[in-house]
Amino acid sequence: MRVTILGGNGFLGRKLAARLARDGALGGRPIAELTLFDLTEPARLEAPFPVRRIAGDVADQAAVGGAIPPGTEVVFHLAAVVSAQAEADYDLGLRVNLHGTLAVLQACRALGTKPRVVFTSSVASFSGGQEAVLPDDARQLPTNSYGAQKAIGELLLQDASRRGFLDAVNLRLPTVMVRPGRPNRAASSFVSAIIREPLLGLATDCPVPESFAVWICSPRSAVGWFLHAATMDTAPLGLDRGINPPGRSATVAKILEALERVAGPEARARVRFVPDPEVQAIVEGWPAAFEAERARLLGFAEQESLEELVRAFVAEDLEATRRDRGL
Amino acid sequence: MRVTILGGNGFLGRKLAARLARDGALGGRPIAELTLFDLTEPARLEAPFPVRRIAGDVADQAAVGGAIPPGTEVVFHLAAVVSAQAEADYDLGLRVNLHGTLAVLQACRALGTKPRVVFTSSVASFSGGQEAVLPDDARQLPTNSYGAQKAIGELLLQDASRRGFLDAVNLRLPTVMVRPGRPNRAASSFVSAIIREPLLGLATDCPVPESFAVWICSPRSAVGWFLHAATMDTAPLGLDRGINPPGRSATVAKILEALERVAGPEARARVRFVPDPEVQAIVEGWPAAFEAERARLLGFAEQESLEELVRAFVAEDLEATRRDRGL
Repeated sequence: MRVTILGGNGFLGRKLAARLARDGALGGRPIAELTLFDLTEPARLEAPFPVRRIAGDVADQAAVGGAIPPGTEVVFHLAAVVSAQAEADYDLGLRVNLHGTLAVLQACRALGTKPRVVFTSSVASFSGGQEAVLPDDARQLPTNSYGAQKAIGELLLQDASRRGFLDAVNLRLPTVMVRPGRPNRAASSFVSAIIREPLLGLATDCPVPESFAVWICSPRSAVGWFLHAATMDTAPLGLDRGINPPGRSATVAKILEALERVAGPEARARVRFVPDPEVQAIVEGWPAAFEAERARLLGFAEQESLEELVRAFVAEDLEATRRDRGL
Repeated sequence: MRVTILGGNGFLGRKLAARLARDGALGGRPIAELTLFDLTEPARLEAPFPVRRIAGDVADQAAVGGAIPPGTEVVFHLAAVVSAQAEADYDLGLRVNLHGTLAVLQACRALGTKPRVVFTSSVASFSGGQEAVLPDDARQLPTNSYGAQKAIGELLLQDASRRGFLDAVNLRLPTVMVRPGRPNRAASSFVSAIIREPLLGLATDCPVPESFAVWICSPRSAVGWFLHAATMDTAPLGLDRGINPPGRSATVAKILEALERVAGPEARARVRFVPDPEVQAIVEGWPAAFEAERARLLGFAEQESLEELVRAFVAEDLEATRRDRGL
């Protein structure tokens, strides 16, 4: 089978590609060819199958068509402009998140073979705040342009599935932690930073109190969900292609306890609480818990514990992060 | 003030334009200029203010920009490809209903003066069926491309309102009855036909049983809601720009009773019940009732009685319909 990853050079795209290379197969069937597509040419990948690496713009219909050749059975559509950037540059967000998804839709439709499309939507498409526990049929009332564009992408791919152009599963990903790299201006940056920075021996500021809760998942869970979404029977989904996967609602206190269990009190002591009203104003609108019953019934695996999540980061990403940052 | 009606040559666009011409004002302020924009050049309109009539494509950014000149304070965006057509021609539906709304958004944004945009969304953006009574925060899970494109338009205009590009009110219109013209292939055609055809002295088939319920409004109510949406204070809406106006849930039996009260048993006898499983399969997915509490609190007027609705059609549209159809 032929597989395409759009956004194949991003953090999750590279994790997913590495997993496919390790497995050599998807849903028990060997992969004949993998296409990685991103704005910058995707990194080289050792794999038991040919890997095409293409640099291009996801909003460019011809480029996306080239990335989804005839015979493609699964498209992972992870290409996106993320929340802070989509908020800062409205037209760029529209271009990538809306027109890009339209281009993916039309490329899949042109195949005429109804490929599976796994689309990464986001909890940012919901509102609700700290108190809410969102049911599976919660309305999406986005508080940011990224979330609005993701909700729009879901509607497009859902309708295209109903029409038989493609066969979409729209995964509303929780905040993924632990992300490698550096702290950045994204409002959610601290969620990864309070684990990553102390493990690197660095101090970091937490802008919200210990009681603040966030709906999270690990990169490992996200990749597992991608594979399940790519191979599951979609008939039980019916019209409704949106899935709230079973992430975990975690307070900052619980996250720091897990850090301490893995790396000791001196690691935890590197996190200082420095309230940031601006960050708080943004993140307090995010829903911190979901029922996620439908996803469980559909076979999406539970998020591992916070301690396992921290240990997985240490095992898989800490050294590379240290190296990348010259530490 | 300057006002623009996109879709100004459609059934509701013409009703709205006539009302503005009669009033000469909107929200108590005189209208300085009205622009009517449609695919075909809008009909001539006698009015106490200058009327520009422009033929153009709503998906053409330059054309839409010309229809929304500097100083425009209110844009009524009624331009759409309707349900049956959007289902039959996917690309046309996308072009008009999605790219058209994007063009309107960008034209309003370019003004820099945050015009009010009254957007006609639709109950077709919901599912639910005969049993459901939809709350104001019901999720939109469209069963057709038209409904999906309308839900997308709402998300775009809602986010643009949040960003301060414009100031949108998204009205999810019920099925409007009585429409003039002829019976057509739209699944909802019968809702108007069972009133209009008997009043014209013609027989008509009703494809659903007497017990079938539909969420309806009159053109008069729709125009009243447009004017309220154009002039209301939008501050209480907050993030949520979607309004389910207070239509009326009416069974076919109740509609025919109203017909009989206005035009006698011989009119009612012209309606034959001829089940059409194909039409039934489509329309039984439509929600037939809404709570509409939010709209009432926001001052949207109640739908008049079915009998008043029938009498209004007789008074305002029956003769023109007879003439147009050469009867």
